[in-house]
Amino acid sequence: MADQESFAPPRGMRDLEPTEMARRRWMYDKIQQVMTLYGFQMVEPTAVENLSTLEAKTGPDIKNEIYWFEDKAGRKLGLRFDLTVGMTRMVANRLDLPEPIKIFSISEMWRYDEPQFARYRHFYQWDAEVYGSAEQEADAEAICLGMDILDNLGLKDCEIRISNRKLTEGFLRSRGLESKEKIEATIRLIDKIGKLSKEQITNELRSVGLQESLIEQVMSFAALKDKPDKILAQSPQGLDDKGKQGLEELTKLAEILDKLGRIDRCVYDLSIVRGIGYYDGIVFEAYDRGGEDIGAIFAGGRYDGLCRIYGKRDMPATGVAGGIERMMLSMERAGLFPELKQPPQVFVIAVNDSVRGACWTITQSLRKQGISVDFDLKRRVMRKQLEYTDSTGVPYVIIVGQKELDKGVVKLKDMAKRTESEMTLDDAVNTIKRA
Amino acid sequence: MADQESFAPPRGMRDLEPTEMARRRWMYDKIQQVMTLYGFQMVEPTAVENLSTLEAKTGPDIKNEIYWFEDKAGRKLGLRFDLTVGMTRMVANRLDLPEPIKIFSISEMWRYDEPQFARYRHFYQWDAEVYGSAEQEADAEAICLGMDILDNLGLKDCEIRISNRKLTEGFLRSRGLESKEKIEATIRLIDKIGKLSKEQITNELRSVGLQESLIEQVMSFAALKDKPDKILAQSPQGLDDKGKQGLEELTKLAEILDKLGRIDRCVYDLSIVRGIGYYDGIVFEAYDRGGEDIGAIFAGGRYDGLCRIYGKRDMPATGVAGGIERMMLSMERAGLFPELKQPPQVFVIAVNDSVRGACWTITQSLRKQGISVDFDLKRRVMRKQLEYTDSTGVPYVIIVGQKELDKGVVKLKDMAKRTESEMTLDDAVNTIKRA
Repeated sequence: MADQESFAPPRGMRDLEPTEMARRRWMYDKIQQVMTLYGFQMVEPTAVENLSTLEAKTGPDIKNEIYWFEDKAGRKLGLRFDLTVGMTRMVANRLDLPEPIKIFSISEMWRYDEPQFARYRHFYQWDAEVYGSAEQEADAEAICLGMDILDNLGLKDCEIRISNRKLTEGFLRSRGLESKEKIEATIRLIDKIGKLSKEQITNELRSVGLQESLIEQVMSFAALKDKPDKILAQSPQGLDDKGKQGLEELTKLAEILDKLGRIDRCVYDLSIVRGIGYYDGIVFEAYDRGGEDIGAIFAGGRYDGLCRIYGKRDMPATGVAGGIERMMLSMERAGLFPELKQPPQVFVIAVNDSVRGACWTITQSLRKQGISVDFDLKRRVMRKQLEYTDSTGVPYVIIVGQKELDKGVVKLKDMAKRTESEMTLDDAVNTIKRA
Repeated sequence: MADQESFAPPRGMRDLEPTEMARRRWMYDKIQQVMTLYGFQMVEPTAVENLSTLEAKTGPDIKNEIYWFEDKAGRKLGLRFDLTVGMTRMVANRLDLPEPIKIFSISEMWRYDEPQFARYRHFYQWDAEVYGSAEQEADAEAICLGMDILDNLGLKDCEIRISNRKLTEGFLRSRGLESKEKIEATIRLIDKIGKLSKEQITNELRSVGLQESLIEQVMSFAALKDKPDKILAQSPQGLDDKGKQGLEELTKLAEILDKLGRIDRCVYDLSIVRGIGYYDGIVFEAYDRGGEDIGAIFAGGRYDGLCRIYGKRDMPATGVAGGIERMMLSMERAGLFPELKQPPQVFVIAVNDSVRGACWTITQSLRKQGISVDFDLKRRVMRKQLEYTDSTGVPYVIIVGQKELDKGVVKLKDMAKRTESEMTLDDAVNTIKRA
């Protein structure tokens, strides 16, 4: 048993079987359609990065959360934990590309996490990034793209929760929290609202060193969640310049989303901060209303500071990414996948060994005419071939016998109707193509 | 500089830029078309395997040639070095699947090799495998599939070199070489013919312990290369049963390839052995006639013994795989890639800030109608927007001004003809869609 087990994928890693693969390909096509409508171009950064590249985004602690190792030459390498790092690295030194640069990728990544529901060690994301625009048009583009991807997949009932890191940080600073470490620790705790209890959050904020009155203000701030115009009307007073800029950005974004008729699916939710350190403007998370337990179905935000870490080109940037497995969970629940089973269109059966050669040439001829065909690769007797075709779900069977060959015909069997008729191969081709 | 360099991909790893990515997607579509015609279903095994899984195929020495490491729990893991291992592991315990099982995959893999021309540390392959058939129909299916994939990509001038490992091993054994180690060492040296000089091979065969007369016989055997019927007519005499079975398989294969009109592109070449230990029947390598220096453009063979290593299901198996990068090299040389640059179909330009809102809604409306659109995300003045559109290669520009909006029209500019005319948005949509 121990031996057998070692021939399964490692813990948390996944093989993709034909049914899942067909669903993924269908989803990837739908996602790519929307990316193309929006003018994004596809790229794929390397899956194996230098560890220093991965650390540059989030600090050396990332080591604890990823797969990393030394190669035979002592180079420290790591498996990518997202697509944003690689995509940003790819453009950050490309001084030749005119702005904005709009790229996307759909691929796999790895995190050394404890596997749990809707969280995996090995998972796939679609990811779109806009480099070179500081305007809220770009943030709106990321949000609308996410919405349209869900729409195109049939997931029409989602809520986008939006806030702004400048507002959060400006609010904390204007309320007397000055230390960068404390601000970041507080933001990480705001990110945990909903995952931890209110008591746990309060206690943790105390450990960070926040006074009771500030804790109360933080909790009230983070509890603000309503239609964008309502939040903008009741937003905190006495903000510093950064906080005001955050509000200004949210105001502009609301104007665009309203103009585009998208505002009804958006709420401004000041508990949204995205945990990760490098976000520095609009941030958002989208939830499928049928699947809150799955977690955010897409999320993203602005990270104007990241390009200058990876290269000479100091560009503003904003983006959006979504988990493929989470989308699949939501889609399966809602029964949104079409029937994708694709057996060959026809199976060519040999009545006996003397007509095997004719079966090979018929198979080849049908394939040349664009029909997907399987034939007996096991030299089975006719009865066994028929049993096999029943299990595959092929819609048609061509039965090849010497008597029919002599007459210049084949038998075409319609598997659904259970009917059988003799016809020329050309007529069989036409029947199959028309089906 | 040192810092900057660490933000490139690691040595031998690759980022895929938009132009290359578009070419790959085009190729993958062409490959998938052929796979579907042949009735293969797509899968993808995990990229990260247990080291023991990787070692089981080729022995513990594989460690020296791959990326492997221990995870935080002390599990030994490795990056896959081919797709066959994972695909075989996937089916070897699936007692529920009716035979034959025909699956394919297109994905990346890694080898700790010294990078050189047409050899990479990080590369992609298409790979198709047939499990459950011991017949030469299945070998022919693998060979024809490879040919048709090249054909579908426009690479019509290839030569398939075919032999049989049973014949090679049977020949060596019938000439007095009994030790399994010596047989395998000899086969690995036959695999190097063409890469090493005749003297080097001869010397190495001496080191393995072969007598001069046997070395001469091995070299004559491996020099046999001709049309299949010629080789079958002059094949070695006095073979043991295994050798005879190898010849029998080659005879059957020639019959099928002849019947299918494929024999003209095939030669029987007894120097073809595929280096790797687990091949045990028909083996083949295909070369693009314009690119011998690139190496085999696809290759494969029968490995009836591998399934029982990975699972309870002891199935014969045969397969074929090809390198994506090698195919790209051949295709670039032959100029076979179509123009794939896909800028958006139209760019929407705002004459000034007062019409930005109209640009957003026009953009959204065009996208809803299936037209790919970009618009100004940087709030640039009109002149800068026009300069940008020139650089992108968009075929159409829609210029939105207040005067035109008041009249219910937009200006549509045809970038190739450098003409401009006023029309309703609906007429613009129709013009763009017709283009």
